[in-house]
Order: sequence, then structure tokens, then C-alpha cells
Amino acid sequence: MPAFGSDNMAGVSPQILAALAACNDGPARSYGADEVSARLERRFAELFERDVSVLLVSTGTAANTLCLAAATPPWGAVLCHPLSHIENDECGAPEFFTGGAKLVPVDGPLAKIDPEALRRKAREGKGDVHAVQPACVSITQATELGTLYTPDEVAALGAVCREAGLLLHMDGSRFANAVAALRVSPAQMSWKAGVDLLSFGATKNGAMGVEAVLCFDPKRAQELAFRRKRGGHLTSKMRFLAAQMEAYLADDLWLANARHANAMAARLAQGLASLEGVEVQPGAEANILFCKLPDGLATALLEAGFYFYADRWAPSVVRLVTSFATTTAEVDLFVAAAQRFVRSPAA
Amino acid sequence: MPAFGSDNMAGVSPQILAALAACNDGPARSYGADEVSARLERRFAELFERDVSVLLVSTGTAANTLCLAAATPPWGAVLCHPLSHIENDECGAPEFFTGGAKLVPVDGPLAKIDPEALRRKAREGKGDVHAVQPACVSITQATELGTLYTPDEVAALGAVCREAGLLLHMDGSRFANAVAALRVSPAQMSWKAGVDLLSFGATKNGAMGVEAVLCFDPKRAQELAFRRKRGGHLTSKMRFLAAQMEAYLADDLWLANARHANAMAARLAQGLASLEGVEVQPGAEANILFCKLPDGLATALLEAGFYFYADRWAPSVVRLVTSFATTTAEVDLFVAAAQRFVRSPAA
Amino acid sequence: MPAFGSDNMAGVSPQILAALAACNDGPARSYGADEVSARLERRFAELFERDVSVLLVSTGTAANTLCLAAATPPWGAVLCHPLSHIENDECGAPEFFTGGAKLVPVDGPLAKIDPEALRRKAREGKGDVHAVQPACVSITQATELGTLYTPDEVAALGAVCREAGLLLHMDGSRFANAVAALRVSPAQMSWKAGVDLLSFGATKNGAMGVEAVLCFDPKRAQELAFRRKRGGHLTSKMRFLAAQMEAYLADDLWLANARHANAMAARLAQGLASLEGVEVQPGAEANILFCKLPDGLATALLEAGFYFYADRWAPSVVRLVTSFATTTAEVDLFVAAAQRFVRSPAA
Amino acid sequence: MPAFGSDNMAGVSPQILAALAACNDGPARSYGADEVSARLERRFAELFERDVSVLLVSTGTAANTLCLAAATPPWGAVLCHPLSHIENDECGAPEFFTGGAKLVPVDGPLAKIDPEALRRKAREGKGDVHAVQPACVSITQATELGTLYTPDEVAALGAVCREAGLLLHMDGSRFANAVAALRVSPAQMSWKAGVDLLSFGATKNGAMGVEAVLCFDPKRAQELAFRRKRGGHLTSKMRFLAAQMEAYLADDLWLANARHANAMAARLAQGLASLEGVEVQPGAEANILFCKLPDGLATALLEAGFYFYADRWAPSVVRLVTSFATTTAEVDLFVAAAQRFVRSPAA
Repeated sequence: MPAFGSDNMAGVSPQILAALAACNDGPARSYGADEVSARLERRFAELFERDVSVLLVSTGTAANTLCLAAATPPWGAVLCHPLSHIENDECGAPEFFTGGAKLVPVDGPLAKIDPEALRRKAREGKGDVHAVQPACVSITQATELGTLYTPDEVAALGAVCREAGLLLHMDGSRFANAVAALRVSPAQMSWKAGVDLLSFGATKNGAMGVEAVLCFDPKRAQELAFRRKRGGHLTSKMRFLAAQMEAYLADDLWLANARHANAMAARLAQGLASLEGVEVQPGAEANILFCKLPDGLATALLEAGFYFYADRWAPSVVRLVTSFATTTAEVDLFVAAAQRFVRSPAA
Repeated sequence: MPAFGSDNMAGVSPQILAALAACNDGPARSYGADEVSARLERRFAELFERDVSVLLVSTGTAANTLCLAAATPPWGAVLCHPLSHIENDECGAPEFFTGGAKLVPVDGPLAKIDPEALRRKAREGKGDVHAVQPACVSITQATELGTLYTPDEVAALGAVCREAGLLLHMDGSRFANAVAALRVSPAQMSWKAGVDLLSFGATKNGAMGVEAVLCFDPKRAQELAFRRKRGGHLTSKMRFLAAQMEAYLADDLWLANARHANAMAARLAQGLASLEGVEVQPGAEANILFCKLPDGLATALLEAGFYFYADRWAPSVVRLVTSFATTTAEVDLFVAAAQRFVRSPAA
Repeated sequence: MPAFGSDNMAGVSPQILAALAACNDGPARSYGADEVSARLERRFAELFERDVSVLLVSTGTAANTLCLAAATPPWGAVLCHPLSHIENDECGAPEFFTGGAKLVPVDGPLAKIDPEALRRKAREGKGDVHAVQPACVSITQATELGTLYTPDEVAALGAVCREAGLLLHMDGSRFANAVAALRVSPAQMSWKAGVDLLSFGATKNGAMGVEAVLCFDPKRAQELAFRRKRGGHLTSKMRFLAAQMEAYLADDLWLANARHANAMAARLAQGLASLEGVEVQPGAEANILFCKLPDGLATALLEAGFYFYADRWAPSVVRLVTSFATTTAEVDLFVAAAQRFVRSPAA
Repeated sequence: MPAFGSDNMAGVSPQILAALAACNDGPARSYGADEVSARLERRFAELFERDVSVLLVSTGTAANTLCLAAATPPWGAVLCHPLSHIENDECGAPEFFTGGAKLVPVDGPLAKIDPEALRRKAREGKGDVHAVQPACVSITQATELGTLYTPDEVAALGAVCREAGLLLHMDGSRFANAVAALRVSPAQMSWKAGVDLLSFGATKNGAMGVEAVLCFDPKRAQELAFRRKRGGHLTSKMRFLAAQMEAYLADDLWLANARHANAMAARLAQGLASLEGVEVQPGAEANILFCKLPDGLATALLEAGFYFYADRWAPSVVRLVTSFATTTAEVDLFVAAAQRFVRSPAA
């Protein structure tokens, strides 16, 4: 039955599974001293059009919290959107990795931080020993609502950061979906817009379990390596993480997967928007969709075996997430089921 | 060229690779709510002959430090052997995960903690607010020298722990090698001998990257789950960790792999012991071997392309580690090369 | 010139200074094993009508953060008012001492947590491994706005805590002011209303630098002692902290001081309320007063040499704090100066 | 009865008590913005012959751990003597304040770190991500055995530190005793010999409870201020800490007190050394004395009411500590009592 619960419910792209098998060929140096890891570092430099330090880890939590820890002293503040994943869904992992820094919410419409609100917050308590010190801004791309920051919007935040002496981190667990939707280059979407540290996600978009910490600030690279080890995130058989990421980037699989996921979300939005009583949230351009459904529809769809989250936001609001593995048939099945209910809810 | 650097230089058992492909079949609940994970919990209960809480993580560092954190308050002491991995090779990960507990060395021959020394240390500073409080004992099985604790030896330490109110953790990154060598049951080697928390390793013995935290103390299980999440070790596509572990346990692959690795180490020991000037360290029964080589031999072998660690212990002492993937041909090649050198070192 | 900036700008009660001299009489056991400390523990038991564990520390930050650390695991949440001192003015000390727990705001009028809002928050994320776990509620008495929780209001929060399995901490840096204003017993104001841990302040009310952590939950007492030491808050010459506290409690000095401070605030409120254009914030019953002043008055008073904080809240809003040392002459001088300005602002 | 347990059993110098009374004169700015604090900063600059950042705290634990935290990242190692106070008597406070750094012992005779041993340890694991990174060396002056580093000996360690890129911290809880004994200037004993951070103790030598963190590295000063606040060590009524320290430095009271304590220890050593069967530990020049006593003598003296520690080192070894408050009469009483026992132990 179709699952729209999260893109992490999908399996693994066949090309990535094949790469695991392909690199299982005799012994290799451990902890990242292998040849695949070396190739991958060059590949990232090419993709991002500059030297970049690459650390692979197996979860998005690890990628984000390592970045935040490198960017924020224990007495620092991480400025982030109140809807951000790091604020709501990490069981305090950022606080753990930073040694007790504080996440400070900065609001803005559509899950995006407002630059003016950021400018105000970035000055708050600066130099006052009683206050945590703004040190870092973290934005999510694509956001938790499936909306996107344009490169210009990122650059506006980046400018505030530079002005206030803050680092800019991008939680890119869905970076591919954003780049694919906006048709921009990875460089434009990151360091050229002022991003210092990027969590470059792959797991939600077809990998088995690998994310890259990309650090554009050479001064932080060594620190990140020690923090990764201390966090238990230095994998011994690293070649199998590197092989996943290499296959993910090869032949633009990452963009193809993301484009497909985005297209499935658009198809779902279009299908649902045509139904009476369904309100599709505006602004979503990636692979996440929020909808307000008529009374009873969410329950009916769940009972029919569709899987998605329905009980976490406003009443009757559901979140639908598509992935590289979502099929048009699955989308159409879902829309058809919704349509049947809307037409005759009593059934 | 043969690699005896570490068992983590080996690749993945074909059965485990196959299991990854086999479970890549449509969507699944994430974060461990999948069917493979559910089956695995039952499998571990069967294997250990009792209920046990199972948490999968992707590295041994994570498994060990989560156990230590659940067993030790920040003001506590972890009593461990001075040669232990957690003391020497984790860049302070135990200190990070415990919130700053202290590792306190307790010595003993052959990398094994001496029970009498432990009894003394377990009392030191008890109740004194100026002293860290002994809270937990951590032993490595097989040890860092490739030696083994018999179940009776573990039970003797377990008795000291219960007497002093300490928990007993076993770093079992090579648990399979120990169980295979001693021909005992997993239960005998763990909770029946007083072990409260076991890091059940698989990565070094044929998995790609998975370890199980087995917790025999139900009171700590929930805490471990929160700590795992905070540490960034709750994998989203958990089924792929579970599938590795399931295949590892199926048809006793784990024991077969370990027996093979142990046999290769024995063959290596036997071959080298016959050479003049080579001193093979006594007591090693698993898959790690330390040898004192005649002057120049280590360098000659490294230059010939063999891979192993030579520069970390006493002069001319080398460590050789075999794995499930080591072949008799590789062992024999190594011994023959050493033999050639010993016979005519000038060559 | 009169200082209304904070009650911590005042000096020390003569009786407390005298007690320091009186106990400077030959050697004494250090770290709290002295006779004054022993007497003090009995005195607190008497005052609070039950056994209670007493730990002295020299700052309110230390008292509060030790309580929070004992009540909240690293993956826990401390529920507190958005205006609370621990949330705004401690540079992340609660996060440091708890090992990275999260402070979660729960709102309510007049700086007091609303019980219904608390009931909702106390359930949020319970048992969900992605969410920090509500573990403790912290309330300030008197609040940061100078308002008070009645014993019934505390009890209502205490009931929610017990229902949800949370501990209740009271930041009583101005506990004396609250008890004096409400004419209740210390017991009624604390453990009888469900408080598990009380920061019993003395510094702001006439001591030189001493606060007591009072722990009504015997299970946490030993942990607090170790945490105090680790935090660097176990004073060696403890008798000089104990002597301050003993003198503070003797002959109800603590209540006399607090009554005086409260009376001075009331006199100030009355004087200012009579002036045209001055809005005195309602509800304040202790020694803190917020007022909205006519344009220009705050600046005029500051320029005239009065000391108070004016620039931290809404425009033209000032905070005035009185202490045991504030005199009626000082209050009257301030009111008269304000009156002159109001009558002829051009002057 | 005379107490030789520790110099922290003594009370407070009369001049220091008087200074507390003298500064209790009307309101003052809190948190160190008062006039006494400002004067004190200038006084320290004069005393140390250079600009220096000064942070007052109320305990030696706080002073030391703040220094270590500023000098050592969480993945760092603090190299210290195995007998050092920070390693043995702080319940893990250094680990807490540094965020989990590791204390690594470096041995040497008479409780002093051997420069060659330090040179070796300073290189160990450098750059290896599996190893904690040597970041800081901490020495105690006077040492825990009452011995002293000469300025040349400190400079030798300082040279190793600079060579290896480590910072040098001096735990000077008995800095006065060392300076007085060696007749050197504070500057010679600290920054001129390569010390970057100095815990300048006063409590053990006549203050009530104040220590100064002196930071000769301007880059660390701001960080220290935030760490102090987070640690709960920013006292609100700071003038009373500053006043203690000001009186301590005035008219060289600190040196006079230290000279007296040292002289009492010398007198005690001389008296005891003349007794048959008593072995006075060589090398002690400050106010701490270790002696091996004839069987039964320690017990007899304790039963006679003298106070000192006897059960923590080798059998029959006792530690005797003198202070500014120790009198010649007390010393002579002790020696006489020992003499009586030695002459007729059966009595």
C-alpha cells in the first residue's frame, strides 16, 4: 500500500545497492582512508566548484548536530525557525553535541526565517554575559513545510550572518529536492549564497544511510573530524558509505531522484486540489505537501491502508511526502480514493 | 595483497549483502518500527535465552558509549583495563556520552582485569564527594590482545560488581570470536556471568556496519533509546541495519565467520612460531596476534605490500588481525615471506 | 544616590556581617563538616516542619541549576515561563548543568505559568524518542514581574506535576518576599504545595552571598552533593556560608528584611501611581515594580542620578526594585523627583 | 586543639574581615561593575607587571576548571601529574567544565612533571582522530606534596608547551606559599616562565572564599567570562569578593601570611625530624609536610585531639598542613606530644 509518511520510508535506489556490491571487493583501509572516499572528495569539489571538506556520517541528526557543534560554543545560540527539525524532532541532539547551546526561534512565513527578524535577534544580548551569544543560523532547505529558499533569500540571510559575525548552516536533508526544483547549481544554493556548513542529505532521496557534512570553512574541518569520532560517527568500513554517496552523485542520480519525488508531489497536489473541500497549502515546491482535508477523509484514507501523518498539526491537516520511489499509480490511487470519499462521504 | 591491519578492513559477507537487497522491497516504517526489526528482537531473545532489549547502531563506538552512558552518572567512574579500546582509541567518546565521567584503569595480565585489583578500586572514594564514584566496569571480549575471559573469569568480575553495586558492561566487538573459541553459549558468556549491558559486535565479523546494544537490565532500556536518538544513532531506514544483523545470525553465520577468523589466526601463529627469532605472544585464542619479530622483518614485510600495524607497541612488535575473509593462501603467503626473510635477511 | 536597579545592589545586613566575624574563631572542619553547618540543617528542618536536605552555594545560578540538573535528565525538558530568569538571564547555565536539557516555555499571565497550559505541555511528546521528555517544572517565586503565586496556585501546578510524573522546582531567590507578602508558612509555600526542590535565596535579601538548595526528595540528595562538587560550588570554608544563613534565619531577620523591601515597593507604587501619566503595573506584591512612565521621565531620572533599568522592555517601561536597605527617604526622593518632572516636564 | 588537616580549616585574616565591613557602604553595581573590582584589576596589573584579565570566583575548583575549559577543547587532553588535585580530588569537575576532555597523567619526582616525560606525552596521538589531543598542561604550585617548581623548572615546561602548541595552566591555590618560599616575583613565577592561565589562590591563605583566574592570553578572556556565568560563578555582590582580594594584596598581606605558614611548616619539620623514628619527607619548602611516623604515633596524636589526615597514603604516613593562623605554640605542642610518645610509646 502506498506510503506517504516520509521519504525515509522508501528503500534504496538500485544503483546505490549495486555500488555496495561493487565495492565489496577485497580489503580496504578503514575509517575513510580508502580509495572510494578519496574519489568522493574530488567529486564533491567538482560538484561544488571549489575545495570543500567532506565528512560522511550515517544519519541526518549526526550531520546537523556536528555542523552546529562546530559553529556554536556551549554559551552560544543557534538561531532557527520555530518549525525547524533541529528544534522539534531531535530529542535535544543539538544541545548534546554543542555542549548545551540554546536554540533560539526566529519566525517567518512558510517555515522560512525572516531576514529582518533575524537581524534583530542576531543583536540580542551580544556581549552581555547573562545572555547566550548568537553564533550560528540554521536553515532547512527544503523546509519542513516543503517550501524553498531561493538563492537570493539564502543570500539575504547570509548577509545578515556576515554582518553579525554568525555562521550559516543549511540542513539540506532535502537539498536535492530544492536544487532540482529551483534549477540552480549546488554552489549557488550553498557557499555562493553564504552557507558555511551544509548537511548534504542522501538518505531521504535514495541512499541507504549516508549524509555528507560539507564544510566550506577550512578552519572548522579538523574540529569536525574529532567531533565525528567522539560522537561515534566515524564508520570503520567507510567505503560503504562513500560508495553510496558516489553512486548517488553519479550520472546525476540525486537530481533525477529528486525531480521524480517533486513531480509526484506536484501530481498529488494537483489531484487533491481539484477535490471539493480540500485545501492544499500554498508555496510547497519540493516533495512535501500539507493539506487540510474535509472532515473524516484522513481517517477514511488511513483505514483504507494509506500511510501518512495526520494527528500532529491542526485538526484535519495531513502531511504527504513523496520520494524517488513513489509511483504515479500510487499517487493516482490516493487521489482516486480521496475523490470517492469526497463524492460520497457516507459510503 | 593480504591485509592483517584490522578485521574492519574486510568487506561484507555475501549473505549479508544479499539480505540488504532482499529487504529493499517497497516502503517500510522507519526508525525501527519495521518488520525486520521486530523479527530481530525475537531472534535475539531466542539466542540469549531470555528477554532482552535490542538497540541497533552503526558503529562500535556508539554501542560502547551508549552502554557506558546508561551505566554511569556524570560523576561516576568507569573501571576498565589500561589497554582497553574505550580508554585509548575513542577520542574521548565515553567522556562525551557520559557527560564527563572518568575512565579509571584497573590492571591485570593479558589485557584482562584482575578481580582483586577490581575489588580494591571498586571501593576507592565510595561516598566521598571529592572523588568520582565507581559506577560501572567495562571489559573487552575478546580483549585488545586477542585473549579471552572464560565465563568463570567474567563471573568473578560480575560478583565483584554486584557486591560493590556496579554494573558490568562487555565490549563485545569481537564477541563472536570469543564465543566461537570458547565453545560456550551467548547466555553463558554474558548475562549468566553477570553482564548487564553487552555491545554485540557484527561489523568486524562480516557485517557492513551494525552493532547491537543488548540490555539485560530493563530499567535502562528506555533511557538507551533516548540516548541513541540524542547521539544521532537512530537510523531512519533501520530495516537495513536489522537485515544485516538478521543475516549475520541466520544459520549461525556469525559463528562460522568467527571460527574461520580464529582458525586463520591460529594458522598464522603456528606458521610464525616455527620461525627462528619470532616470538608469538602467548594466550591469544581469537583472531588477534601479537608477535615480536626479528629486526628488520616488519619493515621488509610492509615493503613487500603486506598491511599491518607495527609502530604502536614495543620495538619490533607487530599486531596481526585475521577476519572472516582471510584465506589460508593469504596466511601462507605471509608466513612464507617471513620465512624467506628469516633465512636470508640480507636478501 | 538611591539605587533601584536590583536588590543585589544592596550591601549586607549588619547582623550577617557580625555573624561572619563571630564564627571566625579558630579552625573548623572544612566542606560543611563544621558545627555551624550542622546547626543550620536542624534550623531548616524546624523552619520547614520536616526533614530536608540542605546544600549551601554562593549564587542563585548555582542553586537553580543544581536543582534543575537533579530533576531533569539530559534528554528532558524543563517547563518554565517565557519570562523566567532561568530562560533569559543565565547564559545557558541550566543547559550546562543538565547536560543539554531543553527549556520549554509555558505561558500564563503576570509571569505565572497557567495550569491548563502546563497540563497540555506536560503531555507533549511523552514517550516519543524524537522529542525531549518533560521532566520538571520550574516556577519563580516571587516572579520576575514581582507577582506572587498563592499556595493554592502552586498546589494547582504541583497537582499537574504529580499527575504527569514531573518534579516541581521553585526558584525562590525572592522566597522571603513572597512568604512575607502572603503571610504563609515556608512549608505551605513549598513542599505542602508540591514543591520538590527549592532554591531558598538569601543574597538578594541581605546576605553577602549564600543560597540554600532545599531538597524535599531524599532520593536526589546524594546526587546533589556530587553535582555541587563537580560544579565547583562546594566551598571549603563552608562555615562562613552557614553563618550567613544562620544569621539570616535568626530572629526572623529574613522576614523582617523582606517585609521592609515589600513595604518600600508599595510606597513607591503608591507615590508613582498618583502621578499623571504614570501607569503602575498591577499585581505586583513583592519588591519589584514595573511602571510605564511619561515620555522623557525615565531619562530625566537617570540623568538625575537614580539607578534603575529602563531599556529592556517596552518603550518607557522601567523596572524598580527595592531591598532591605532601601529607605523611605530614598523612595520619597524618587517620587518627588518624578513629580517635579511630571508637573513641569520642560524644566 | 591545633588543626593541621588543611590550610582551609583556618579562618579569615582580620584585615580581610575588616575589608568586608568597610565595603558594606550603600549600594554598588553588581556582577563586578563596582569600584572595588575596578581597582583590583589595576592592582593585579601592577603586581604582575603587565595587563592581565582578572576573574574572581569563590572556589579553587571553579578557578582551575574554568582555566582548563578555556584551554582545552572537549576532544583535548589535559596533561597533569598523577598526584595532582585536579586528577584526584575534584569529582570530575575538570571533565564537566571542559565538556568531557581527558586528564592524562605525566609523572615526575616530588609531584612535579618531568619535562622529558612531558615532551613525549605532548606528541602522543597528535592529529590522530582516535586519540584525545594534548591541549594543555596543568601544574600545581606549590605541589600537592608541598614541593616547589623553581621559575626555571616552570620555564622548562613552558618551553615544551610552546614547542608542542599547548597552553600552560598553573593551579596556584598555594601560589603565595611558593612565591614567598622562592623569593621571586609573581611575574617570574607565572607569565615570564610561560604560564598562560593562573589560578591565583587566596582562600587557603587567609581569605574567606575568593580566588582569581588570571589570564595572560587576551584571546581567552571573553570566553572565560561566559564560562564563569554558565558555571554559576558570577557572584552578584562581587564587591565582597573583590574587597577580600584587595585586602589580601594590600601591604603584602598575602606574602606575610604565606611566609608565616611556611615558617610554621619548617618549624614543624625541624621539630619532628629530631625525633627518633620520624622520617620527614625531603623537598617540601612550602606549608605542607609529609612524614612517616613510628607505629602508633599517628593514632596517639589523633586521640590526643590533634587533627590531620593519616589514612590516605602509605601506612604511618601523615600529612601536616600549616596556615597563616598556625601559632608557634601549636607547633611546639604538637612536637612535644610526639616527643613524649617517641620516648615512651607504652604510655
